[in-house]
Amino acid sequence: MNTPPKVPAVLVLGPPLVFKAYESEFSEKFNFLKPWEKAIPLHQFISTRADTVKAIFCSAVSPVTAEIIQSLPELRFVLASSTGVNHIDIRECKRRGIVVANAGSTFSEDVADMAVGLLIDVVRRISAGNRFVKAGVWPKEGHYHLTHKLRGKHVGIVGLGSIGLDIATRLYAMGCMISYTSRTMKPHVTFPFYPNIHQLVANCEILIISCALTEKTRHMVDRDVMLVLGKEGIIVNIARGAIINEKELIECLVKGEIGGAGLDVFEHEPNFPQELFALDNVVLTPHHGAVTKEACRDLYDFICKNLDAFLSNRPLECEVVDV
Amino acid sequence: MNTPPKVPAVLVLGPPLVFKAYESEFSEKFNFLKPWEKAIPLHQFISTRADTVKAIFCSAVSPVTAEIIQSLPELRFVLASSTGVNHIDIRECKRRGIVVANAGSTFSEDVADMAVGLLIDVVRRISAGNRFVKAGVWPKEGHYHLTHKLRGKHVGIVGLGSIGLDIATRLYAMGCMISYTSRTMKPHVTFPFYPNIHQLVANCEILIISCALTEKTRHMVDRDVMLVLGKEGIIVNIARGAIINEKELIECLVKGEIGGAGLDVFEHEPNFPQELFALDNVVLTPHHGAVTKEACRDLYDFICKNLDAFLSNRPLECEVVDV
Repeated sequence: MNTPPKVPAVLVLGPPLVFKAYESEFSEKFNFLKPWEKAIPLHQFISTRADTVKAIFCSAVSPVTAEIIQSLPELRFVLASSTGVNHIDIRECKRRGIVVANAGSTFSEDVADMAVGLLIDVVRRISAGNRFVKAGVWPKEGHYHLTHKLRGKHVGIVGLGSIGLDIATRLYAMGCMISYTSRTMKPHVTFPFYPNIHQLVANCEILIISCALTEKTRHMVDRDVMLVLGKEGIIVNIARGAIINEKELIECLVKGEIGGAGLDVFEHEPNFPQELFALDNVVLTPHHGAVTKEACRDLYDFICKNLDAFLSNRPLECEVVDV
Repeated sequence: MNTPPKVPAVLVLGPPLVFKAYESEFSEKFNFLKPWEKAIPLHQFISTRADTVKAIFCSAVSPVTAEIIQSLPELRFVLASSTGVNHIDIRECKRRGIVVANAGSTFSEDVADMAVGLLIDVVRRISAGNRFVKAGVWPKEGHYHLTHKLRGKHVGIVGLGSIGLDIATRLYAMGCMISYTSRTMKPHVTFPFYPNIHQLVANCEILIISCALTEKTRHMVDRDVMLVLGKEGIIVNIARGAIINEKELIECLVKGEIGGAGLDVFEHEPNFPQELFALDNVVLTPHHGAVTKEACRDLYDFICKNLDAFLSNRPLECEVVDV
């Protein structure tokens, strides 16, 4: 007698915010395994269901380690709810022929808006002005101190993927001078290209990080880079915390060796350096560059489409081939 | 025996921030009268020097009243350090044939950047996220709540002068749908025009105030307008506080009848409503939209050029003919 065919299962790790927001809609369409609902360790949860798991759907902060991958013999697909896939062991996936996909450009514009918002906030001191007002200092001190103009500033963008390009479009409209560095020069982009971060930073006063975190980009923005950026220089990071050497960033900010920073991501988030709390020229947000209600809805559609495509052997919308 | 001709004097009221920043440079070029240096009432200061004053140079918060104008028989020129001239008695100037000039478009882009910064801050909750992080809530609560996307939002701009146009350019690059109301339809602008604020607000979810304060625009944004804008609606004001009925704005914000506000200007600044302090969806800045170091330098040049032109009977760069 044959056993009935097993329904392919999708292991959810995190869970991603979009999963929580659309859990009932998602659950009508797919057979999800939700380890956080059981009071047992993850590896134990996985071991009892290992042969049904065809796919993983994971948040940006849930590591998909070689160990997890190796414990899932039927795994063929890892789908991230984020743009970055640095939390997934890509090498092990490649070795096994497992397809890795990310959220594509679903979040690009929202993250770009966040980068621009953080930049204006730091340059024009919006959060600091807000504190000045709310602390009741304005009537006593009169004029708030002068801030800086954005027009004409040289902005160097690190990584000109869809997020970087959306940032460039926005800041170009604000009169900034854009240049970039990237793994390769983009053939259809007319902004000046520099082959590495050192040449880029020598030609800009604002540095915006929008590249993937890889072994090559980890701690790419270090003290040397920051000293070239200089005392008036500003760093905005909406990519991944570890692209900047956070320890050296703090040192440069505390010593006034760079002018300010707008950071949506941190090396050990949600924990991050207390030294930054007191600095008026630093704006910190809790990695929410991507999470708007509208993008969440778009992401839900995107995830359904891709899981559906995978489970019925149709082409995916987005595939990470090389990281 | 003839008395020597009197050197034409410029009465400085305020003084404007640019005057303080460039006082020594200014003083080499012109004969300035600085009433704040004497411990006597303004009218007394003026009365002893009235016949030498050919021009007034004033900040945005120094009223140039009919009384002051009438006490200066030789006055021919009032030059404001601001874009708005609502603090100058234009009617009295007209009656006397006194030319009134403002700062032209010196500040337009900086004010537009501020409007965009305030808007992103409110929509994407940057200041609120900053507080969430700095209060140490992130590690405890995990995900920050969802915010809203800017792309596709309908933005209504009230007043499409140079500031309004610069705001439109920026938000258009961010994927917003722009429309506007203005005294007259702009012939070369393709964004939809509505003849009044009521039709504008019925067609947008974000309202940005960038018009002059006049008797017609005073309290133009009232409770009726705000109720049409609705619970998700956002107001940004970088023009003058009194264009909004501030009492009704507070009521709408406290009751949640509109979604949020980004305010750089207030009806009775530097004093303003304490009720707004506690609201997470309200970002307040101390009327510093225009004051960047670079714009201050540009303004210094602009003021020198115009005072020079006036004193040597050459054409001015900027003239307010009709307010």
